[in-house]
Amino acid sequence: MQKILMDVDTGIDDALAIAYAAALPHVELIGITTTYGMAPVDFSYRNTCKILEYAEVDVPVWKGAENPLTRTRAYSGRIHGTDGLGNTLGPVEAPVATRHAVDAMIEHIYKYKSELTIVATAPLTNLAMALAKAPEIAEMVGRVVIMGGAVMTVGNVTKFAEANIIIDPEAASLVFGSTLPITMVGLDVTRKTLLTARDVKRWRDGGSKLAQRLAPSAQFYLDAYKELHPYLPGCALHDPLAVGVAAYPDLVRTIPMFIQVDLEEDALGRTTEDLNRTGKAEPTTRVSVQVDADRFMNDFFHRIG
Amino acid sequence: MQKILMDVDTGIDDALAIAYAAALPHVELIGITTTYGMAPVDFSYRNTCKILEYAEVDVPVWKGAENPLTRTRAYSGRIHGTDGLGNTLGPVEAPVATRHAVDAMIEHIYKYKSELTIVATAPLTNLAMALAKAPEIAEMVGRVVIMGGAVMTVGNVTKFAEANIIIDPEAASLVFGSTLPITMVGLDVTRKTLLTARDVKRWRDGGSKLAQRLAPSAQFYLDAYKELHPYLPGCALHDPLAVGVAAYPDLVRTIPMFIQVDLEEDALGRTTEDLNRTGKAEPTTRVSVQVDADRFMNDFFHRIG
Repeated sequence: MQKILMDVDTGIDDALAIAYAAALPHVELIGITTTYGMAPVDFSYRNTCKILEYAEVDVPVWKGAENPLTRTRAYSGRIHGTDGLGNTLGPVEAPVATRHAVDAMIEHIYKYKSELTIVATAPLTNLAMALAKAPEIAEMVGRVVIMGGAVMTVGNVTKFAEANIIIDPEAASLVFGSTLPITMVGLDVTRKTLLTARDVKRWRDGGSKLAQRLAPSAQFYLDAYKELHPYLPGCALHDPLAVGVAAYPDLVRTIPMFIQVDLEEDALGRTTEDLNRTGKAEPTTRVSVQVDADRFMNDFFHRIG
Repeated sequence: MQKILMDVDTGIDDALAIAYAAALPHVELIGITTTYGMAPVDFSYRNTCKILEYAEVDVPVWKGAENPLTRTRAYSGRIHGTDGLGNTLGPVEAPVATRHAVDAMIEHIYKYKSELTIVATAPLTNLAMALAKAPEIAEMVGRVVIMGGAVMTVGNVTKFAEANIIIDPEAASLVFGSTLPITMVGLDVTRKTLLTARDVKRWRDGGSKLAQRLAPSAQFYLDAYKELHPYLPGCALHDPLAVGVAAYPDLVRTIPMFIQVDLEEDALGRTTEDLNRTGKAEPTTRVSVQVDADRFMNDFFHRIG
């Protein structure tokens, strides 16, 4: 069994990723840490619990960072709705208190060490805070699969930057600057795995109970994508692909390369090779540059049902 | 025999590339077109003839574009000297007239068709002009290996752009926007193949006649690099690697991907995936993302002697 801890900002594609992880027979989803991102953390916490309920699995969830390390976050609701799930769930009732996600993350790395894979599909604030609090985890954890960045391709927030990176670029810089064993799953590959209107219609019309519950959020996401990214024939399965890569590492071709996050305003959040580290040590980060999209999509739709 | 036509702006690393191509037993160097770039075209023409003389081979040379398609070019002389060869040859005596390089290029593509590989290690003005004059060559030529661009890594002129692209970005956009069968050999791989002070010393002290003749220019290049790119333990063999890839295609791992050249001022000359063409047709461009640097360097030094 592949032990996975997810770090999410649920978020529609996070929701699909959680459902997928819960459905993979060789994955043991040991817990989920949440953070702000596509919606405030109280929403992503609530949304995460709801998706686990849809998936009929019992997995602990913790609330983490409420803001980027040094910046502020505004929520447009354009892609994920104001509730983070395409306005299907509405406002949260009341904030809950949990153990802090960062402490839960550190504890699980100590407990499972190299057996643990972290799948981070949110701004990297929780992970950066964990590294700041317990730097030794970089040498302990088995693998960290990060949905974030755009190395060979253009960004989706600016032409330079992808959302999870630019929302908290300082956190991303800290994480990619560490020696964590990262597999980067960026827009370079996630834009190759698309959910289409036909797929969502199939979920709605004849899908499993889970698929039918996910369909309205997926439809919202699809409609937003159609407006914002008319060049794509569907909406990208960013976060589910990160789970896919954690479960099936050979889904992607990777290049070992140190990554730097641009913190200058003219290209904020751009992810490129870090020349200051190239050649000085063996890169601990692998960048995904090609994906077997058909194989992933087949498995994803098979598992969701 | 691999028939190669080179398009150069000699230039110190062009000089090394020409010497390497001339020394490869399974390469037939059928001609060299020249252009402005590291120095004005009269210099690069003269320099090219001189390097062929050093290499003791008889290869026709033609003079091509004198300026970028729509921009002007200033010459700093910082990396290649004011004469293009590290101030080893001085000013040109008198400009010569030749058949125009663009016509020679088109003629040779018509003559050799898919047997011909073009290796372009200069601003892409000649190639763009050839495409504008005879668009059909895109479907005729065997392969075009281009030293230019930076996809996963930062540029060497700005943080966005590599020299051959930013000197004539409109030409580069035209070339990468075509259906030419391009193999892109950018900074992503060329920065991994470095000439060091020890290598140049070996050339000077005990190298072949050719190596001894190339050593003073190489030393100038090395010194300039040390000042401008202190993070690199040597100077990049940009142009020789393009010849290497033409001669040994499996030297590099490539990704099929349409490339766009950014023509906006804020990231002029940046080369990234072209989302407007992704998924709509099979990419005709392959981007080099990894290189077997040891194998290339061994062959390069073996051939130069």
